[in-house]
Amino acid sequence: MTEQHDVVDVIRTKRDNGRLSDDQIDWVIDAYTRGVVADEQMAALAMAIFINGMEREEIVRWTNAMIASGERMDFSGLSKPTSDKHSTGGVGDKITLPLAPLVASYGVAVPQLSGRGLGHTGGTLDKLEAIPGWQADLDNAGILRILEDVGAVICAAGAGLAPADKKLYALRDITATVECIPLIASSIMSKKIAEGTGSLVLDVKVGSGAFMKQFDQAKALAQTMVQLGTDAGVHTVALLTDMSTPLGKTAGNALEVRESVEVLAGGGPSDVVELTIALAVEMLAGAGKTGIDPAENLRNGKAMDVWKAMIAAQGGDPDAPLPEAPHTETIEAEADGVVADLDALAVGVAAWRLGAGRGRKEDPVQATAGVEVHVVQGQPVRKGQKLLTLHTETPERFARARAALEGKVGVAPPGTAVKARPSIVLDRVEA
Amino acid sequence: MTEQHDVVDVIRTKRDNGRLSDDQIDWVIDAYTRGVVADEQMAALAMAIFINGMEREEIVRWTNAMIASGERMDFSGLSKPTSDKHSTGGVGDKITLPLAPLVASYGVAVPQLSGRGLGHTGGTLDKLEAIPGWQADLDNAGILRILEDVGAVICAAGAGLAPADKKLYALRDITATVECIPLIASSIMSKKIAEGTGSLVLDVKVGSGAFMKQFDQAKALAQTMVQLGTDAGVHTVALLTDMSTPLGKTAGNALEVRESVEVLAGGGPSDVVELTIALAVEMLAGAGKTGIDPAENLRNGKAMDVWKAMIAAQGGDPDAPLPEAPHTETIEAEADGVVADLDALAVGVAAWRLGAGRGRKEDPVQATAGVEVHVVQGQPVRKGQKLLTLHTETPERFARARAALEGKVGVAPPGTAVKARPSIVLDRVEA
Repeated sequence: MTEQHDVVDVIRTKRDNGRLSDDQIDWVIDAYTRGVVADEQMAALAMAIFINGMEREEIVRWTNAMIASGERMDFSGLSKPTSDKHSTGGVGDKITLPLAPLVASYGVAVPQLSGRGLGHTGGTLDKLEAIPGWQADLDNAGILRILEDVGAVICAAGAGLAPADKKLYALRDITATVECIPLIASSIMSKKIAEGTGSLVLDVKVGSGAFMKQFDQAKALAQTMVQLGTDAGVHTVALLTDMSTPLGKTAGNALEVRESVEVLAGGGPSDVVELTIALAVEMLAGAGKTGIDPAENLRNGKAMDVWKAMIAAQGGDPDAPLPEAPHTETIEAEADGVVADLDALAVGVAAWRLGAGRGRKEDPVQATAGVEVHVVQGQPVRKGQKLLTLHTETPERFARARAALEGKVGVAPPGTAVKARPSIVLDRVEA
Repeated sequence: MTEQHDVVDVIRTKRDNGRLSDDQIDWVIDAYTRGVVADEQMAALAMAIFINGMEREEIVRWTNAMIASGERMDFSGLSKPTSDKHSTGGVGDKITLPLAPLVASYGVAVPQLSGRGLGHTGGTLDKLEAIPGWQADLDNAGILRILEDVGAVICAAGAGLAPADKKLYALRDITATVECIPLIASSIMSKKIAEGTGSLVLDVKVGSGAFMKQFDQAKALAQTMVQLGTDAGVHTVALLTDMSTPLGKTAGNALEVRESVEVLAGGGPSDVVELTIALAVEMLAGAGKTGIDPAENLRNGKAMDVWKAMIAAQGGDPDAPLPEAPHTETIEAEADGVVADLDALAVGVAAWRLGAGRGRKEDPVQATAGVEVHVVQGQPVRKGQKLLTLHTETPERFARARAALEGKVGVAPPGTAVKARPSIVLDRVEA
């Protein structure tokens, strides 16, 4: 580490499509964390990286520098193997909620250090906070104790993990430098490697509701992340999964908790069940447990038992009724026909505008706001049949939510050939 | 003007190599001036512009938006035509000092609203402040009065002219987004058009000591600026001039004033005289005065009379002795030979490190620091002959100044064929 690097030289190197040296990367990440490199300088560098890219060696170094900016957790003292999952974010993506207790029910520790939502994709912590009494914050000792006793924990990532990433992530959000493979991959993997998990399964979303709209982009991101994890000694696998239409039947905090509990009770929408099981198989295999059919513990209530213990361990009452929105409106089919469009991004933006998400990171969210989806793509409907129900605590939000759905959720004339949703899991990437 | 534009959308447009709309440009410049768009957001946009460029229509709109961010001056009430000169900056470029009074001596008003130096190129105001008593700041009434009475004024540009540019220029300096034709052209031309001059001559420097190292880049910049001026109704011409080796025999504030006074007295280095006359011919022609040989008023003392009146009008004593540095060191030829290298950038950086320039805009400069050049490229020298004299008020600076010159100012064995400096004026661009 040296103060000899002039930040303008570092920016200029990437601006001119050069390769950042190891020293430059180590220095700029450390200096940014300390406030020596200013936000406007990191913004210029991030844009240069966005446009000109980084080579694999640069991404590895960048990731390691972000890990080195903070503390690392250590789960090696636990009596069981650890397995972690990360999703790149989608609409209606509540999979962490049933998945963590399901995997834990087979004797694997699942530490899910999570974030809050920003934009149209919901945050796992925001969802769980819809449960009366549940608290997101735990100290490291609390995390270890719940992992040992209960097996799964979903809580806020402490400020000590990869603080450089925390600062950079907030900056990227306001400078149009989010959707960039080197920056996304290093952001996700720095946090996950610093968390100290033994194995990791990545759920990389593809489609209108995801950051990566195109399959090829998503696959490149998955490959980069799998490589970063493998290089760091973490057993890492990625599934590429469909996000062209919402996952399950709900987008919104309490609404998604309700749907997750249905899955844990052996029911729930088939796409949510399918993806939960596919990811559980990968997480169990990563922890050395093969030949298991995770559907079993959804049917027999063992996953539900872990869920209840996990919620209770953080002060939540798993049996308390979930809050419900005081105001709802329905969107109905205007004519007989076939559901032709059910766009993930539009539903996500509608839920966000209804109050389920936040515009700025300091904004509160509404526990009960969101969208219920009553149909699936390709399904025949009759005039007047309910397509969506919009939920909110503030009815003046209905108009802007409806505007987001305009032309994005629609019914085609009867007999129109509509492509059904593809299989949830599109591809699998391993080292 | 509307607040409807999301700044992230504007950045994203240019990031993805799209064309910014007129509305986007108007809004983002206005919002940045007002502080609604943050420095980190403008830094990301500037980097996207740096890498992806702007089309001619975008540059015109961007320039006009920066002009609209502040006030415009109006010289139309003067009894004489106005002509202005702008240099893109070089090492030893003191031309404004003899040029403004020379042109004014022919009945043309010359308003030189100038800046301070940053980096290795000196600032005109810093140079004049070496004159005892001289003050850079004037209000608009004072500028008009001196233009009417004396004919030439060199003073600080008021904060009211193109404030968006002022803010953006400071940002570009720390984010490696300086050397970019659309941003340089719009920065220079927004200030010059807002100043309200009737005609403008641009001195676009090319070579190691200039922002534009390559002829083609410099020519493209000149063409862009001439077009911007012409579109705004300002008669605009550009000369491309050599900046591979320093201009004249001095780089430094008091040192350059002394050399300028020599030129006004009918002497001085031939390259400074040549460029002063070439630019004077263009400025006079722009103001409608053709067929003049400006060398005349250098010889007969009329330009010197205007100089003295101009300095006195701003509180300076044109007859007071200039300050001299308390510490000097010489660099001598280590063997007989021919001066093979005399690099403009190296001399500029040495003068800067000796104290003639500033590292940050709030730093003071030393009036007496700088470099005297005793030889020209291609000149035969004997062992021990003085090549340079370094001047400073703080002798601890000598070592770093010498380091800048290492390998950049040198003597080749006797008889080595060394290319002499090319003609100062390399090309001319008009609309």
